[in-house]
Amino acid sequence: MDVATIIGVVLGFIVITSAIVTGGGWHIFIHLPSMAITVGGMLCATLIHFSLPQFMGIFSIIKKTIVAKIPSQSELIQKMVNYSAINRRDGALALEQEIRNANDLFLGKGLQMLVDGQDATDIRELMSLEIQNLQDRHSRGKKILEFMGSAAPAFGMIGTLIGLIQMLRSLDSPESIGSGMAVALLTTFYGALTANLIFLPLAGKLGIYSKAETTAMEMIVEGICSIARGENPTVVREKLQAFVSASRREEVKATV
Amino acid sequence: MDVATIIGVVLGFIVITSAIVTGGGWHIFIHLPSMAITVGGMLCATLIHFSLPQFMGIFSIIKKTIVAKIPSQSELIQKMVNYSAINRRDGALALEQEIRNANDLFLGKGLQMLVDGQDATDIRELMSLEIQNLQDRHSRGKKILEFMGSAAPAFGMIGTLIGLIQMLRSLDSPESIGSGMAVALLTTFYGALTANLIFLPLAGKLGIYSKAETTAMEMIVEGICSIARGENPTVVREKLQAFVSASRREEVKATV
Amino acid sequence: MDVATIIGVVLGFIVITSAIVTGGGWHIFIHLPSMAITVGGMLCATLIHFSLPQFMGIFSIIKKTIVAKIPSQSELIQKMVNYSAINRRDGALALEQEIRNANDLFLGKGLQMLVDGQDATDIRELMSLEIQNLQDRHSRGKKILEFMGSAAPAFGMIGTLIGLIQMLRSLDSPESIGSGMAVALLTTFYGALTANLIFLPLAGKLGIYSKAETTAMEMIVEGICSIARGENPTVVREKLQAFVSASRREEVKATV
Amino acid sequence: MDVATIIGVVLGFIVITSAIVTGGGWHIFIHLPSMAITVGGMLCATLIHFSLPQFMGIFSIIKKTIVAKIPSQSELIQKMVNYSAINRRDGALALEQEIRNANDLFLGKGLQMLVDGQDATDIRELMSLEIQNLQDRHSRGKKILEFMGSAAPAFGMIGTLIGLIQMLRSLDSPESIGSGMAVALLTTFYGALTANLIFLPLAGKLGIYSKAETTAMEMIVEGICSIARGENPTVVREKLQAFVSASRREEVKATV
Amino acid sequence: MDVATIIGVVLGFIVITSAIVTGGGWHIFIHLPSMAITVGGMLCATLIHFSLPQFMGIFSIIKKTIVAKIPSQSELIQKMVNYSAINRRDGALALEQEIRNANDLFLGKGLQMLVDGQDATDIRELMSLEIQNLQDRHSRGKKILEFMGSAAPAFGMIGTLIGLIQMLRSLDSPESIGSGMAVALLTTFYGALTANLIFLPLAGKLGIYSKAETTAMEMIVEGICSIARGENPTVVREKLQAFVSASRREEVKATV
Repeated sequence: MDVATIIGVVLGFIVITSAIVTGGGWHIFIHLPSMAITVGGMLCATLIHFSLPQFMGIFSIIKKTIVAKIPSQSELIQKMVNYSAINRRDGALALEQEIRNANDLFLGKGLQMLVDGQDATDIRELMSLEIQNLQDRHSRGKKILEFMGSAAPAFGMIGTLIGLIQMLRSLDSPESIGSGMAVALLTTFYGALTANLIFLPLAGKLGIYSKAETTAMEMIVEGICSIARGENPTVVREKLQAFVSASRREEVKATV
Repeated sequence: MDVATIIGVVLGFIVITSAIVTGGGWHIFIHLPSMAITVGGMLCATLIHFSLPQFMGIFSIIKKTIVAKIPSQSELIQKMVNYSAINRRDGALALEQEIRNANDLFLGKGLQMLVDGQDATDIRELMSLEIQNLQDRHSRGKKILEFMGSAAPAFGMIGTLIGLIQMLRSLDSPESIGSGMAVALLTTFYGALTANLIFLPLAGKLGIYSKAETTAMEMIVEGICSIARGENPTVVREKLQAFVSASRREEVKATV
Repeated sequence: MDVATIIGVVLGFIVITSAIVTGGGWHIFIHLPSMAITVGGMLCATLIHFSLPQFMGIFSIIKKTIVAKIPSQSELIQKMVNYSAINRRDGALALEQEIRNANDLFLGKGLQMLVDGQDATDIRELMSLEIQNLQDRHSRGKKILEFMGSAAPAFGMIGTLIGLIQMLRSLDSPESIGSGMAVALLTTFYGALTANLIFLPLAGKLGIYSKAETTAMEMIVEGICSIARGENPTVVREKLQAFVSASRREEVKATV
Repeated sequence: MDVATIIGVVLGFIVITSAIVTGGGWHIFIHLPSMAITVGGMLCATLIHFSLPQFMGIFSIIKKTIVAKIPSQSELIQKMVNYSAINRRDGALALEQEIRNANDLFLGKGLQMLVDGQDATDIRELMSLEIQNLQDRHSRGKKILEFMGSAAPAFGMIGTLIGLIQMLRSLDSPESIGSGMAVALLTTFYGALTANLIFLPLAGKLGIYSKAETTAMEMIVEGICSIARGENPTVVREKLQAFVSASRREEVKATV
Repeated sequence: MDVATIIGVVLGFIVITSAIVTGGGWHIFIHLPSMAITVGGMLCATLIHFSLPQFMGIFSIIKKTIVAKIPSQSELIQKMVNYSAINRRDGALALEQEIRNANDLFLGKGLQMLVDGQDATDIRELMSLEIQNLQDRHSRGKKILEFMGSAAPAFGMIGTLIGLIQMLRSLDSPESIGSGMAVALLTTFYGALTANLIFLPLAGKLGIYSKAETTAMEMIVEGICSIARGENPTVVREKLQAFVSASRREEVKATV
């Protein structure tokens, strides 16, 4: 559960809403036809850009930015050090029962390859391929949100152009200029707000999660390969702690 | 047949058109000289940028974004697993009759190399060269659409500048300012609309197709090379499933 | 002779000119001091950015985008297949008389190395170095045009700022505001037009030519190296056809 | 203690403040609701983009740009040359007592590996992994500041749009147009000022520090590996001086 | 002495100045407070971004873009061919007296390594490290100028915002609007002019010099390594001429 995303969105809307309400005339900021141009145009462009299944996956992508869990690096190091100790004490086959406790498909797959006795080079090749392809899928999700973040202001501007042209056409009634301009600017406002408060930051968060997940997977690969080469728990720990900021390194010892 | 592209374009025009019609005075939005500047200028710049055959290929590129078919990854895995089983049971020569059923030139070429007994390194080298060159050709198509997507707003702005200068010249007749400005802004509107609703999303879709096709080809290369090294169907399946999102992996078994 | 460049420039100027003429008052668009700021400023910035010989080379660069010739890929494949056949039938020395017919310095150099009996690795190393350095020189030409394409609108804006400041200074004579603004906007118009109709598309065309030339050179390297390894004409053809789009591949056979 | 950062910030605020004060009416530039939109919106977007611990780390990142210390390259070369002399005279074990004096965790780790007798390849692999991961962590800090530097002007523009729409709504009271516009522009001013005077330059400084630290670490790796291969002090000095600008190279001799 | 830089700067100022003078009222373009905001703000941001020694080095960087000398490629080829001839005729030791004539530290270092009898791989490794680090230092100088080129327009805009807000505050005196706007726009003008006529082109020139120097150094490395492998003058010439545009290649023969 990512509390930062939720706090950010809620606080952001409070900040913007209070600015609108204290300025008076909040009802002018709610204008359905302007929303239709900005949001509708953006969704149509997104639909053209991506495939139907990818477009349908937007909600699960957004959900991921809220519920995803960044794996703990020190727990991971602890696990790999333990596996290494088991491997050296009892042999690779003794790791078989750890597969069930792994509750992580990727880690389980790595352990299975250890148990199967595959060598470090093969393990690294297969697992790196999987990381590579996960990164590809992640970066596509990020690209969808980024595209929405660039399409929203674009259609906001298109809406403002439509409004301006309609207003200028009837410039002979000067009293309507102000409200015409105000409505015309609304689409730009919607576009800028959704892009900068929703789509672009969410795309960023997706990148943060992708990076954290990928780092955890690289730590697993590094650890599994180290174990496959029969290296001792101290070396495994040293290698994995290189991934962790010096200030956050914790003393880790094999607990099995 | 890419239904997302068609829905997006049709819906997008409905959204924009209804915004124009409900605002009144839709006829002001249709102005042939303005269209001539924006579209004509953009086409001329595209013609200067690219070669004549590339320019002529725009329509086939656009057609590709509508009719192209994303290959099914699970079908592909199924095929490669079967080839692997046939190869281990009956030898590479038994794959010869599969070439006819392949209905994919690239896959057929790979199978032919298996039958010819070429080794994995040679197969990978030759097939990777082909993927590389396909990507080059794809990215050129994408670049044409992206250039059109950047040239359209540029010539829209040039048209608006021409309109503004002409209007400002005759500023002594204030009653014509509004309509002059409205007409001047039309080219910017045309440029922004065609770029953001047509060219840029279509360029994106082309990239999506290119990526999907390339991934399928990389899966074929990975599979063919794995078969060439005589690996068993389980290993082939493992390797290819690394390309597929964990949530969409299906159980695949050799069916031959 | 690149007909696309010429058609594009001529048509582009017709489109813009007719828009100006039909709008009335075409003479206001010709204003020498404004041209001096935009073009002069841009040329000065280009002179500061690049060295004197590079600056002097602008015309030969522009000429190249008009007269350069994209080499035919199928002719090239035909040639390499023939060389391969000659090499296998009569030995490398028999290629000596082909050097004179090569009418391409790079191809001639490759053939000479074949005749001299250098091995594939040396040939690839030396020829790749030459391709690399050609790309460097090409990309510098492209950068000059791209810089001019970014400097022209910048000096257009600087000119408009000068005009605006001068006009605002004398705002007490309102009848001159319109014409002052019109003149001020002219430099922006010149900058946008030259950048988007001339410099940026020409930079693009230079890139297209560079890519086509480089691909042809890579095909020559691939072919010469294949011949140096004594591979048969069929393999040479297969390797080179990977560079060609599947739909444009032609049946090629050794004709010697 | 980075005096440049402090001088820059203080001088920058003096320059801007004096421009505001000399222009008269400085109090109009202090407007809490406008600050709330710009700074609040930016912080919310940053909170959505990054994770809570990363967001909380902003202050320690900013602190780092002020107090970080760029390591002296000539001191480092002197140290490595001495280690090399000790290593050749007394053997690697004699370096053990230097570990305590190292006052740099990374250097200490390298010396420890020398003492442990690990070979150059292993040392380079492990230490490079650590550099790589440090760069990743550094670049994340830089990205936070860069994101704040792009979000601040965006929310400045959103605030200005809100102000403009509110002002245009009540255009019938022309006397309030000026002050309404002035207040609307304040958020854009806050956004542009904080981005260009604080966030973007600080992100740059972080990059400078990251580069300097990384270079020092690469010099340590290069030196330690050179010592591990038993190379003499002259070679070690030659290799490390390649990192230093020719004009700043100092004569270094082993002092032990 | 780079005459292009000087001509460009002088001509550029003449073009801009004459546009200002012919437009009348040149004195309005000289406004010290506006210069203070634009230049002062930019320098403060640069000071925050870079370290104090780097900031102090701006003048020597700018000087470098004026006095630097692009090395002659054909002279360099001539030298390397001669060294190669000497090496084959009299042995590497005979090159010792050439070191004194080298008047280029990098070339001298390469010759010294030849005399010392180091092999090609070691020479390439050490000299490539030096090129790499020189490029790093060059690109930092380029980044300082590029940052100044982006900060100048940003502080120009900040100055204009300050001016606009101050002017709008006192909108009730309409006669001062024009001059207020004119002064407000001055900072934008200063920022755009210094960025586009000075900082960005100088950054580009620095890149051109860096590229030319690096190419010369790569030619030296290529030549020295070729000589170290005992290759004959013809091969050395062939390899080095790959760096030179075909149209500018001159016939080179060993002159010793």
